Formats: sequence, structure tokens, C-alpha cells
Amino acid sequence: MNNFAFYSPTEFVFGKGTESQTAELVKKYKGTKVMIVYGGGSVVRSGLLDKVKKYLDEAGIAHVELGGIQPNPTDPKVYEGIELGRREGIDFLLPVGGGSVIDTAKAIAMGIPYEGDFWDFYMNKVVPEKAIPLGVVLTIPAAGSEGSGNTVITKLDGLKKLSVRTHGLLRPTFAVMNPELTYTLPAWQTACGVTDMMAHIMERYFTNTEDQEVPDRMCEGTLKAIITEALRVMKEPENYGARANLMWAGTIAHNGTCGVGAVEDWASHFMEHEVSAVYDVTHGAGLAVIFPAWLTYMASHNVGKVAQYAHQVWDVPESDDKKAMALEGVTRLKSFFHAIGMPVTFKELGIEHPDIDLLVKKLHENKGEYVGNYVRLNAQATREIYELANQ
Amino acid sequence: MNNFAFYSPTEFVFGKGTESQTAELVKKYKGTKVMIVYGGGSVVRSGLLDKVKKYLDEAGIAHVELGGIQPNPTDPKVYEGIELGRREGIDFLLPVGGGSVIDTAKAIAMGIPYEGDFWDFYMNKVVPEKAIPLGVVLTIPAAGSEGSGNTVITKLDGLKKLSVRTHGLLRPTFAVMNPELTYTLPAWQTACGVTDMMAHIMERYFTNTEDQEVPDRMCEGTLKAIITEALRVMKEPENYGARANLMWAGTIAHNGTCGVGAVEDWASHFMEHEVSAVYDVTHGAGLAVIFPAWLTYMASHNVGKVAQYAHQVWDVPESDDKKAMALEGVTRLKSFFHAIGMPVTFKELGIEHPDIDLLVKKLHENKGEYVGNYVRLNAQATREIYELANQ
Repeated sequence: MNNFAFYSPTEFVFGKGTESQTAELVKKYKGTKVMIVYGGGSVVRSGLLDKVKKYLDEAGIAHVELGGIQPNPTDPKVYEGIELGRREGIDFLLPVGGGSVIDTAKAIAMGIPYEGDFWDFYMNKVVPEKAIPLGVVLTIPAAGSEGSGNTVITKLDGLKKLSVRTHGLLRPTFAVMNPELTYTLPAWQTACGVTDMMAHIMERYFTNTEDQEVPDRMCEGTLKAIITEALRVMKEPENYGARANLMWAGTIAHNGTCGVGAVEDWASHFMEHEVSAVYDVTHGAGLAVIFPAWLTYMASHNVGKVAQYAHQVWDVPESDDKKAMALEGVTRLKSFFHAIGMPVTFKELGIEHPDIDLLVKKLHENKGEYVGNYVRLNAQATREIYELANQ
Repeated sequence: MNNFAFYSPTEFVFGKGTESQTAELVKKYKGTKVMIVYGGGSVVRSGLLDKVKKYLDEAGIAHVELGGIQPNPTDPKVYEGIELGRREGIDFLLPVGGGSVIDTAKAIAMGIPYEGDFWDFYMNKVVPEKAIPLGVVLTIPAAGSEGSGNTVITKLDGLKKLSVRTHGLLRPTFAVMNPELTYTLPAWQTACGVTDMMAHIMERYFTNTEDQEVPDRMCEGTLKAIITEALRVMKEPENYGARANLMWAGTIAHNGTCGVGAVEDWASHFMEHEVSAVYDVTHGAGLAVIFPAWLTYMASHNVGKVAQYAHQVWDVPESDDKKAMALEGVTRLKSFFHAIGMPVTFKELGIEHPDIDLLVKKLHENKGEYVGNYVRLNAQATREIYELANQ
């Protein structure tokens, strides 16, 4: 176990009807003029946006709105939000939605007090030091952005999808999480969220760091719970208990709880970011294609933890043939993805002829000669993995 | 899963050599005049106290000392600390030690800004609203107080051992956790700590709340990891990985990570508090006696979760005879306690003739007609459990 910091100061307020506490939480965290950030129609159609505005009105908290954030959120909305925020003198951001909305709000939060171009942070040119505080009303369990200090934005010019990771600066002050708000999520979107949260755990779990007994058992346990509850939700979209478990799993998958002390991997995420940047597919669906391919590659190049994963998470019996164990684990993962309606190949993702040359080129342009840590992957290795995803 | 709040704002700085960051963390959290709180000789003998003072001196942070805190900490030291703190105008508390030291510091933190008697908080007469901030240098993984908002103090007059639980007020701003500092802990104290952290998880795990898939898997996983690592530490006290896993387990056992959304139990803790208040035994050792007795009682009165525990944590094979499964789980728990040198009966704890009348009387005087939630226990039931611990 390596040295680590665990710092998750967000106040998570979880359960039925908790969105009604939004205004008092904004007040608690000193918001007086709020920018509500949201996406497409569902938050409007469901009446949630109106409810949140009513709570703020009743509490006498001024607010403006920035709507229309799209999945795989891009820079123009960030610039628009920074301008709006400065003009209106807002001192608190309130994203109502999922990862795209929260990540956009985080970019705006850093951008408002910064004199230069907010994209500097994503290009690693400048480390952000100030941000407007934000609180979250979560409607899509997936990205874990409600509990993380991270944000991912795509720059339209060049289709660069890049991330900023902070220790505490971008962690929301609070996150209101009502699982009932997720009842109406389409099955596809639920499944994409499930895949994303599993991937967040697996990026931390697959490590060469030794002595990870506690983190490993927590990762495996959370993965097992997600698998059980995802299958339940597919059959019963309004099962509160199953929705609640998935929603909480999405948070702990990415707020640092799982996988403390490990050298994390993240190659699969980076490889997927190129896919969703170029083909505008949903991040979770892209991960369902990339991660099994990555695992298959690892079965031949660093089998240890993949065999452990197969046994602990997928109940593959112990055997001396670790590679066979690992591959059986991958087979079970793929079956699970199919069971929840996810693709596991480029073709199933709707990309008949992926431009693997372009993906590899962009990946290493953006991320350098090597990606990942479980095995350091050069362009030849990432090409092989993209090709495994194309079979 | 019931509605819950998860709020763990403490900055945990974990790993080798991390105590050297103490002064910069005190500064980060605005401490300018610090009271160092510590216990007996080991912090002095090891040189840790001198190191911490040197770090503060080098950073130009003024400090005073309150030493001599005993296990099962009592009120006189709290009064002394409150007086010292007021006289010296301290604005930050720095406990260096384990649960007793941290809990005393928390009582002082509430007491300094309060005009009445600090004991009012423990008697539930007044809800604390203000506290001096504190940061922790942890040397004993056990109580989990470094990550909790709780404190337990014994009033010498009447031997009342009572607790205060706060949402966020008493949570440390930071906790420095270097597993190397625990190498020299005597085996007995290590084992008492292991028992305490297991009990903290089990108090949350044994619940009738349904749909606890994620929390259950996390509790079970952490318990399994603790069992593995405790046996390793008994053989190799200077095994960094095993010490690190135990230290982190102690924190997540009690900072809210394990068992979110559950109606928690806590009967075993309350029953043990009477034992350690009257007989001044170590809390963890007392729990090793009480918890198996409580579980044995539950095997007959609410077997469900005990059988699940036996299967998931102790690998007892599934069977239709849930009671037999549960009792086999208890047997394995007792064997484990024996393996790490813990007692499992009053006699082994050194109490030949426990005054069960007195324990039952004090328990229900302090805690009301019923204790616990997994099964609500009246005086007849708690008597039966104390008697099971006396066999």
C-alpha cells in the first residue's frame, strides 16, 4: 500500500425526497447568487428543474440558468457559462444532472476567477488554485463527479477530450442524491452508468501495488453488489433498493473510497476518451467495448490481478491455469454487459470500421508515449487492444 | 437502504513519514496556538512527541501540552484541558495517540467555548454547537475516532461511560496516519484494536434494514481483510503492509464508510461500556467477550444476518439450518479472537465473578429500557447476554 491522501469533504445527502434540502444546503455553503446548470429535456420534463428553482425562490436565493449541456460536454458551453457567471456575479454553481452537467459546472467554477483561458487547466499548463464552490443535485449515477475532484471536457477544435484532477478544489460542497430521480432513466443510460462506475473501480483495482487487502476487498465487494443490483434494475426500473445501491456505488467508485494506496491504471479510460471524442458515443458504452479488450490483453501480459478478479468478482474457480481463469472472467464480464444491453465490440457500438490509426495517434499525442500503469502501453500495445475490441 | 448522510470531511494523510506534515496541516487548518494532547509514556519514549513539537517550533506555531491521558479516559483531564485551553487562548487541538487521547481532545474542544459543564453534552442535555478545531496524529488503530464525529468519556463520579455523536462538528480537520508508528504496539493492544474495529463494522452490519447490497459487501470485505491482516501482524509486528491495512480499516470502520443507510445496533458497545466503566478493562477486550455472546443470543432470536455473516465472513457453507450456520460463525469468531490473544469470556478477561446485576442496572439506567435495534433488548435479554459471556 503506497502513501495516499483520502479527502472527500463533500456532504452527501442521500435518499428519498432529499432534493427538497437543496436550498438549505446552498445557504449552508454560503451561496447567495446561484447558476443552475442542466442538460436536456428530462430535468425540465420531470419538473425537477422547476422544483429546484422554487426551493431557491422560497429561500430567497437569486439564480440564473445555463441549460442545454450535452453528453460528452464541450468547451463552448463552458465559455458561455464563464461569461454568464461573471456578468451576473454568481458565487455558487448548482449543476442538476449527471456527469456532463457537473463536469461543465466544474470547468466554469475554475474559469470564472481565472484571467486566462480555462482550457489551460485541461492542457496541464496551469494548476487551478481558485474555484467558485458548487453543490450538486444528482440525477444520473455513473460518472461519480458528484464526489470527485475531477472534470472531463472535450475541446471541439481538434476533438481533444481531456481531464483535470484536483485534490479538493473541485469537490462539490454537497451532493443531493435521491434514487427515485433515476427511475425514469432509459435502460441504455442506466447500463452505461453501471459500466462507467465498474470501470472507475477497475481502473484502481488493477495495480501492481502490493498489500492492498482492504482496498481489494472493498473494490471486489462493490463490484459484486453493482452486478447484482444492475441485473435487478434492468428487470425492475422502479426498485428503490436496487436504484439506491447503484447510485451510492457510483459515488464510492470515484470519490477515492475504492482503491486507496494503489498506483492506478486509467489506460482504458484514456483509450475510451479517444473513441467518444471521435465518434461521440456514450462514455459508458465505449468502456464496455474497451475494458474487456484491455483485460484480454492483460491475461497474456500481467495475469495475476485479472485471475484474482475473475475468482473474487465472477466466481471463477481457482486453478493453476491463471490465464484460463482470467479469460473466463472476461467472458463472464462480457456476458454481463450483454445482459444489461451493452456492446462489447466496436461493431456492436455502431462503429463498423473504426479508424484505429487515428485513435492510436490521438491517444499518444494527448497522453504521451505510454499510457496505463498495470502494464505500460506503447502505441503497439494500444493498437493491439483497439484491435481486440474490433473482433 | 434508509436515507442517510455521509459526511467525512477529514483530510486523511496516510503512509510512511506522514507525521512530518503535521505542522503544515495545522497551518492549513488555521491553527496558531496549539494544545498537544497525549497519553502515557510510549509517545514520549518513541520520540514522537519531541518530533511533533519540533515540527511546530520550526513552523513558528505556539504550543502547550496536556499529557497523561489514560485508557478509558475520564472527566478530570477534560476539566484540566478546558481550563488550560482557556487560560492559554488555544485555537487548535492536536491529540497525538489513540482513541482515548482523541476523545479527550474532542471533549475539550466542545468544552472550551461552552459556558456550562461539558458533561451536559454527554448527558444529552445540550447539543454542542461550537468546538475548537482539531487535527490528529494517530498512533493506535482501534477506536476510529480520527475519522468520526464521536467521543466517549467516563465520569468518575458514578462511573458513567457516555458518548456524544455529532454529524460534522467533532470530525478532525486532518488525521496523519503512519503505520510505522504502530510497529511497537504490544500484541495485546493491537488485538484490542482489531476487535474494536471489527465491532464498529458489526454494529452497523447487523441491521434489519433491507437492500444493503453495497454496504453489506463493503462490511464483509473489510472484515475479511482485517482477519487476514490481524493474523499476519501477530506473526510479523513490523510488516508494513499488514499494519497499513489494519490502520486504514480502523478508520473506515467508523467514519461512516461501512454500513451507510442502515439502522445501526450498538447494543454490544453499550453493554461493553458498562464492563469497562466498572472493571476498567480495555474496551476492545471487553468487546471480544460481549460480541460473541450477543451473536449467540441473536442466533436464536434473529438469525438471518448472523447466518449471512457466518457464510460471507467466515466461509461457513450455506445450509438450510441457519441457526447452525450462525453458531458455527460464532465459533470461528471466538477461535479467531483466541488466535490473536483475546479473551472470549468474563473469566478469560480476568473477571471471575462479574456483578451482572450491577451491569444490567447501570446499562438500563444509562441507556433506557431497551438497547439495540437488530433485536430490541430489555433487561432480561441483556442479562441473558451477560450470562452467555460468563460461560
